[in-house]
Amino acid sequence: MDRRGHPHQSARERLALRLRAERAQRGLSQEELADLAGVHRTYLGSVERQERNISIDNIEQLAAALDLDIAELLKPL
Amino acid sequence: MDRRGHPHQSARERLALRLRAERAQRGLSQEELADLAGVHRTYLGSVERQERNISIDNIEQLAAALDLDIAELLKPL
Repeated sequence: MDRRGHPHQSARERLALRLRAERAQRGLSQEELADLAGVHRTYLGSVERQERNISIDNIEQLAAALDLDIAELLKPL
Repeated sequence: MDRRGHPHQSARERLALRLRAERAQRGLSQEELADLAGVHRTYLGSVERQERNISIDNIEQLAAALDLDIAELLKPL
């Protein structure tokens, strides 16, 4: 648990859960979001599996494709 | 201007401004924050000059060293 009483969640995990939730809400497949963001589908898949140490520029592209602020995309669900 | 009426600010710029402001508020030098976060001082310098495409793991380490949530560190000032 962190100091706010939440179970610890890594930044990778938080981003992965948020990406899946925001895609689901918009009815977007991984491939569709990847196309919108200009990244490869397999790359997005690896980010959603928390395998990749994604860079700030790519997080920004994903946020823009979802029409979200980058800070929103990194908030806990 | 973005759709919220703010001048556009890149994610790199936002992070850089926020890092400088949070360091200043705590009276921390680049070297001191770098030590706390376990990154090299010259690396932190390049992030604050927006030269580096920093990864999510390193953003997380900097946020933890500042006792901030990663989403806080990426909010506009």
